[in-house]
Amino acid sequence: MINGAVLIGSSERRTEATFYAVDPSNGAQLPTAFPEAGAAEAAAACALAAAAFPQFSTLEPEARARFLETVADAILAIGDDLIVSAMTESGLPRPRLESERVRTVNQLRLFAEVVRQGDWLDATIDPALPERTPAPRVDLRRMNVALGPVVVFGASNLPLAFSVAGVDTASAFAAGCPVIVKGHPAHPGTGELVARAIQGAVAACGLPEGVFSFLPGTTNELGHALVADPHVRAVGFTGSRTGGLALMRVAEQRPEPIPVYAEMSSINPVVMLPAALAARAEALGKAFVQSLTLGAGQFCTNPGLVVALSSPDLDRFVVAATAALSETQPAVMLTPGIHASFERGVDALARHPAVVKLAGARVGEGVNQACGAIFQTDAAAFLADPTLSHEVFGSASIVVRCQSAAELEAVIDGLEGQLTATLQFDEADQATAGQLLPALQRKAGRLLANGWPTGVEVTHAMVHGGPFPATSDGRSTSVGSLAMMRFLRPVCYQDLPDPLLPPALQAANPWRLVRRLDGTREQA
Amino acid sequence: MINGAVLIGSSERRTEATFYAVDPSNGAQLPTAFPEAGAAEAAAACALAAAAFPQFSTLEPEARARFLETVADAILAIGDDLIVSAMTESGLPRPRLESERVRTVNQLRLFAEVVRQGDWLDATIDPALPERTPAPRVDLRRMNVALGPVVVFGASNLPLAFSVAGVDTASAFAAGCPVIVKGHPAHPGTGELVARAIQGAVAACGLPEGVFSFLPGTTNELGHALVADPHVRAVGFTGSRTGGLALMRVAEQRPEPIPVYAEMSSINPVVMLPAALAARAEALGKAFVQSLTLGAGQFCTNPGLVVALSSPDLDRFVVAATAALSETQPAVMLTPGIHASFERGVDALARHPAVVKLAGARVGEGVNQACGAIFQTDAAAFLADPTLSHEVFGSASIVVRCQSAAELEAVIDGLEGQLTATLQFDEADQATAGQLLPALQRKAGRLLANGWPTGVEVTHAMVHGGPFPATSDGRSTSVGSLAMMRFLRPVCYQDLPDPLLPPALQAANPWRLVRRLDGTREQA
Repeated sequence: MINGAVLIGSSERRTEATFYAVDPSNGAQLPTAFPEAGAAEAAAACALAAAAFPQFSTLEPEARARFLETVADAILAIGDDLIVSAMTESGLPRPRLESERVRTVNQLRLFAEVVRQGDWLDATIDPALPERTPAPRVDLRRMNVALGPVVVFGASNLPLAFSVAGVDTASAFAAGCPVIVKGHPAHPGTGELVARAIQGAVAACGLPEGVFSFLPGTTNELGHALVADPHVRAVGFTGSRTGGLALMRVAEQRPEPIPVYAEMSSINPVVMLPAALAARAEALGKAFVQSLTLGAGQFCTNPGLVVALSSPDLDRFVVAATAALSETQPAVMLTPGIHASFERGVDALARHPAVVKLAGARVGEGVNQACGAIFQTDAAAFLADPTLSHEVFGSASIVVRCQSAAELEAVIDGLEGQLTATLQFDEADQATAGQLLPALQRKAGRLLANGWPTGVEVTHAMVHGGPFPATSDGRSTSVGSLAMMRFLRPVCYQDLPDPLLPPALQAANPWRLVRRLDGTREQA
Repeated sequence: MINGAVLIGSSERRTEATFYAVDPSNGAQLPTAFPEAGAAEAAAACALAAAAFPQFSTLEPEARARFLETVADAILAIGDDLIVSAMTESGLPRPRLESERVRTVNQLRLFAEVVRQGDWLDATIDPALPERTPAPRVDLRRMNVALGPVVVFGASNLPLAFSVAGVDTASAFAAGCPVIVKGHPAHPGTGELVARAIQGAVAACGLPEGVFSFLPGTTNELGHALVADPHVRAVGFTGSRTGGLALMRVAEQRPEPIPVYAEMSSINPVVMLPAALAARAEALGKAFVQSLTLGAGQFCTNPGLVVALSSPDLDRFVVAATAALSETQPAVMLTPGIHASFERGVDALARHPAVVKLAGARVGEGVNQACGAIFQTDAAAFLADPTLSHEVFGSASIVVRCQSAAELEAVIDGLEGQLTATLQFDEADQATAGQLLPALQRKAGRLLANGWPTGVEVTHAMVHGGPFPATSDGRSTSVGSLAMMRFLRPVCYQDLPDPLLPPALQAANPWRLVRRLDGTREQA
């Protein structure tokens, strides 16, 4: 049911101010009036979350795992209404949204497994040494505990997998943190459907209502109020660099600063080495354009930069990419604002004196359609103007031609932090690839060989993070099971009597964890 | 050898500007002129550290462990000169410094063990699934890598264990990060001795010189230049709240913000419950004063706050504590500045209209001597004036008398973040203790039962950290093996050919690590 509500715990609120979503495929305003949540709603939701924290954060792993699975089931139970709503609000095609729903549900289930397994607690015991000289050692036990209420800002570009029940919410729940979602204004109806599913799961599992709240809204004031709320202990955000930096400032200026995990900006460099270009320039050009235009280029891992030595093989790559792009169907972008911003970015590159526009996709006939573009420049120009390495969100990419290996290395060294860095290489390039890897590793959270950065697996080994400004905290990932570590902190218990210890650290080990004893891992 | 030098890698520099240390026991200036390192030295040291990073960060664990052990041996090889220098510069007594040296050496050796063991790499492999439908899965491998050069600001109060080769340096080295130490101006000679030991260990192990530099200095400009240097990737700091906050601001305002691990301010509440007071008020009073006056009260974990219900038993505690304090010998504080600041803090409390001074230690005859003090107030006054919960660094503590359990809980809820929180309780108090634990846990990194917060074991389960302002990052610890995780970040490798993978992730597992395969831990 989409009826335009702020969901605060188990209750609904309406507000005087309202806003409407837009169908980007035709620019038409959609019928439902959504409430503009504000400071009052933020305060109420955060207070409820704080009240729910003690119980939710100390649930036994089995109960929290079942809650995550109940949320997954509840999302599936929405049925096709969810897909239809997301299609209408995002302009994304049905198959893409159906597979995004699978991913959303699977990542909730992955966290359920991980929560049950229990290694995230990092239960560590250094028993007392009463006979030690010159002084006996006390009994010390350590485990991870939840940080507290977490505010999540959903992303525009994955209205299911990075939104209301997306990676941040799932990993915060897994860690034991209540979540307050600031609903993305581009897909408020889709958000409400998922929020009601979570609300139902909270009730079905007998959890305190404050475990989850959903606050739709379009204002910066709402986001500011949420991040500044004294009950809030961490923030998850996926969006623009401007937006992420603004929230970082609010968090830093609180009387008690809190961590902000903002995923912001990445151009995902693809470095192509000579033997690979010689062997398969045409195939690379085609595959590159597929990755570039996937989802109208609206992925955080979109390949916005190609770096290679200038050569006839690079010319072949460019020709192939140009041809492939010219055959690409235009695609509706997520919102009129994103489309306009993409057009501005492409325009600015096209008018840049040191940049050549190689190709554009065909112009679409509808509104808000992306006409992807590939540009070219040389290393000297690229190094001279930092704006050339700024992200243009959408299917735009720039090929940087280098005259020497030194220039290519300078381009890599000059890059900001990235989510991904990709090397295309053949056997004969392998030594060069090995030499470039350390520099690429300093720049990125994920290094790919002979692949394309779009397509992010939700697994244990995934890192979807990277040095600033790819994220605000390069020590973290927002995708994969490691994501829940963002919302935990260690606590040490000294000489506590067994009944006062958390179950994870009690002598009888009731949760049957693999624990570390004096530094050595023991079996349960 | 102490001759007053900036150590930049393997070379020495002198500067025009110099400063002198002071013997706090007599206020006399010591003879050696120490250089004032500045922006030029900072830039040179940071550039060298960046140059050393690729090799140092990828050493095999055995080599890095041996380096840590070589540093430990080199510190012991300094012999008694180190103790004599530290005594002269800090005013701390010989036995205390000898045991601090043991701790310093042992923590280097603990990290060597942990580095060898290899779990810190968190090597995680999700193998390719070529047959998966609808799309095959790529091969994904993840491990932790070092952040990059780390700047360490040593503490005044542990001139060995929290200084040049202290917890931050040892854990950064363990993680694979080169270290630039900003030498503490209170003990520059002691710092230089240890720095030369590390410099020797770097050479003896055949490591690149930039692995370590030592920059003595008294200016804020030096610290600012180090934290702002673009090569630097993290900061470790132990000191005042003002100092820590200033460095946090510098780090936040860099073009690329970096993490600052600042341990700043904690009053380490001790909550005493009725049955414990009834059973052993006198013993508690005596033990409290022992903890309060240990090391002239100059420990981060000094018990600066006692909270209890008002009762005749609390009166007995107060009488016993007062008596114990009046018998305590005065002790020299670390620096004239710290002594003056302590006196100001004690004076302000003594003149506070809602505070009663219960007792002071006997006044010393020498300069810079601490005359510890115990104050008393009621919960209403304590809650009304936040300055009463500010740390007075030294042996000063305030007893807060509560009229009800609700008042006691309000005092706990009103506290800022702490390194530790202690409960004194007996069998009959245990239910109450259990009820208070969740609130205390939200405030502190270590919870103690029937102990005293001074005395920090260096083990696997230790947490020496806590919510702001105890530290700038409550997700971390600066003591214990977990401390090295502060200087690591995860990187994912997708489809890399085996020879290009780091050894920790190669098929043959040459480092014989326990790795995680599709989420399940495997034996090497």
